Amino acid sequence: MPATQYLKLDSPFRLRKGGELKELQLAYETWGELNTDKDNAILLFTGLSPSAHVSSSPKNQSPGWWEGMLGSEYPLDSDKYFIICVNSLGSCYGTTGPASINPGTKKRYGLDFPVLTLEDIAISTNEVVKFFGIESLHTVMGSSMGGMSALAYLVQFPKKARNFISISSALRAEPYAIALRSLQRELIRADKIWADGEYADDEQPVSGMQLARKLGMITYRSATEWRQRFGRERASERQGGAFGIEFDVESYLEAHAKKFTGQFDANCYLYLSRALDLFDVAEHGGSVAAALKKVEIERALVIGVMSDSLFPVHQQKEVADALGHVCDKVIFKALDSIQGHDSFLVDMDRFRPIMCDFLSSCKSPDCGEK
Amino acid sequence: MPATQYLKLDSPFRLRKGGELKELQLAYETWGELNTDKDNAILLFTGLSPSAHVSSSPKNQSPGWWEGMLGSEYPLDSDKYFIICVNSLGSCYGTTGPASINPGTKKRYGLDFPVLTLEDIAISTNEVVKFFGIESLHTVMGSSMGGMSALAYLVQFPKKARNFISISSALRAEPYAIALRSLQRELIRADKIWADGEYADDEQPVSGMQLARKLGMITYRSATEWRQRFGRERASERQGGAFGIEFDVESYLEAHAKKFTGQFDANCYLYLSRALDLFDVAEHGGSVAAALKKVEIERALVIGVMSDSLFPVHQQKEVADALGHVCDKVIFKALDSIQGHDSFLVDMDRFRPIMCDFLSSCKSPDCGEK
Repeated sequence: MPATQYLKLDSPFRLRKGGELKELQLAYETWGELNTDKDNAILLFTGLSPSAHVSSSPKNQSPGWWEGMLGSEYPLDSDKYFIICVNSLGSCYGTTGPASINPGTKKRYGLDFPVLTLEDIAISTNEVVKFFGIESLHTVMGSSMGGMSALAYLVQFPKKARNFISISSALRAEPYAIALRSLQRELIRADKIWADGEYADDEQPVSGMQLARKLGMITYRSATEWRQRFGRERASERQGGAFGIEFDVESYLEAHAKKFTGQFDANCYLYLSRALDLFDVAEHGGSVAAALKKVEIERALVIGVMSDSLFPVHQQKEVADALGHVCDKVIFKALDSIQGHDSFLVDMDRFRPIMCDFLSSCKSPDCGEK
Repeated sequence: MPATQYLKLDSPFRLRKGGELKELQLAYETWGELNTDKDNAILLFTGLSPSAHVSSSPKNQSPGWWEGMLGSEYPLDSDKYFIICVNSLGSCYGTTGPASINPGTKKRYGLDFPVLTLEDIAISTNEVVKFFGIESLHTVMGSSMGGMSALAYLVQFPKKARNFISISSALRAEPYAIALRSLQRELIRADKIWADGEYADDEQPVSGMQLARKLGMITYRSATEWRQRFGRERASERQGGAFGIEFDVESYLEAHAKKFTGQFDANCYLYLSRALDLFDVAEHGGSVAAALKKVEIERALVIGVMSDSLFPVHQQKEVADALGHVCDKVIFKALDSIQGHDSFLVDMDRFRPIMCDFLSSCKSPDCGEK
């Protein structure tokens, strides 16, 4: 990936819940040009599993995870903005994480990696912002876990962004989402190959990861979508013997689980998943209001989806209400997309016009629909 | 369980999708007295995991799975009605199922048990009705899977019941519920102890069953209940090492999973779970209308719960609408209980008055609240 750039920190990086990382490396990509005033930058935090490759570019033409949302004439308009995306601390796409070599032991960190929080992700990401000499970000934003990381950024750097966009995110993890993630982690840990995190360098706990991915898919989508899409259609091919695949929805899950395999390191997944559970913006001062008290933003956009059961719409409303106390212009949109939590990835036609309006980007009437 | 009675069928029982069972045994319990006209019987179908022990009685004083709903002065009033509950075919509480000894081989059926459908459960259950010489049931009813089995009874014995009660059930399995059950089954099958269904007589795939139970609990309850009940409370005791139990909701799931262990045979669970997926009332004639065409009932009561994500309220409405075509008096109630699919088991105060009204039972104003 020639588009990926790397920043190595000189000093050890201390984590919120203890421990430190030496020689921390951050992998990131940028799109567009930073202007002379260095005030046109958008910092984008990702969800749990994506890399920093948001969108294709001349340097890396492979499609990104938000292809169609970033680029010339798109909401995240690279003709106008300098867009930065950093692979989250704890992940495995170039940034230091549990799958990285611990310079102290010359072995992978594994479970020796310190407890990770979204606050740590936000602070480490800010090193890239500092590297570019940016003192005022046009916008800090994120979707899903990325929205929480963006909030963690906002409360820790309260004067550093002028605009804020939260998509399908939350002020804190609620017990239903914690339960689902806890079970996903248990499915990975129950795989013997995981071996308390000490699996071989060339062997991932694939079965456990596939089961966790299936549970993920069930919670990322919605019953309404699947009713319309699969109904009670039978799979074209039965697989897996007794109690194997019989219905279309079962072969869909199987195909998605297989696709995910090997793409993501199991320990990284566990750390990032737990970091989501641990997040509660109210920890910064004892209440949501106290956490946001010092935040100085001009405008905020909060988008949620009615069919999202993982980050339900009442949590989006909470984000909007909280931001309403520190900023006069908060736009809150609850969309009718039927694809649940994943809607921002697959129902982009609904998201684009709202983001274009907010970012005054892609003035063309077709709004990024190429 | 001295209250349990048994009926052994003389002829082999043929199943809907092929295969037959010799020496089929049905375990059942009854409450109250069958009147001289034999027209005061209520036939109650159970959900996936309960036995026929609905409620305590002088013969078996241990609490039943619907204690507080059946008995003197309760909606299922044993002073007035003769209530029959049969342990479903395929289960493991006295009725023949995959854990039973195959008289042909003298070994457990295991996966040699034929494919099971809810229609088979309904037809086998009717053998107990026939045994009592009942030609007209006052009411046939069921909750969850039991509601589907009751529907399967209704379409196969269309003139045999005068009233029908469906609680948190459906006309067919939808893909979201199929996906969840499919994953639950996979969690059991992924447990090495399961051994393609050939686990030892004294050893159940406990880990797999516990994981499946946790997923079950997540889908049986609701995010709203857990938000109110657990919030972000930490568990009093951390368990399980790295990524183990940290939040209250995690220790709740762990406790429930452990309680379930050993109570239910894994193969029985797999067969009954798949039988739920396979059910679609429209298979009886090609459409729901065709399936219900011959049904002669006087009144129907359909109860659902707004917070139920497994058998969502639109499916309750579908049941009510379908019954509306064959019967003038259909009462449809969508309750505000926050306990999701499990509400009928834990929020009985909301269900009792509605059922009392419908069954003209427990005339006392406290309606079963003892």
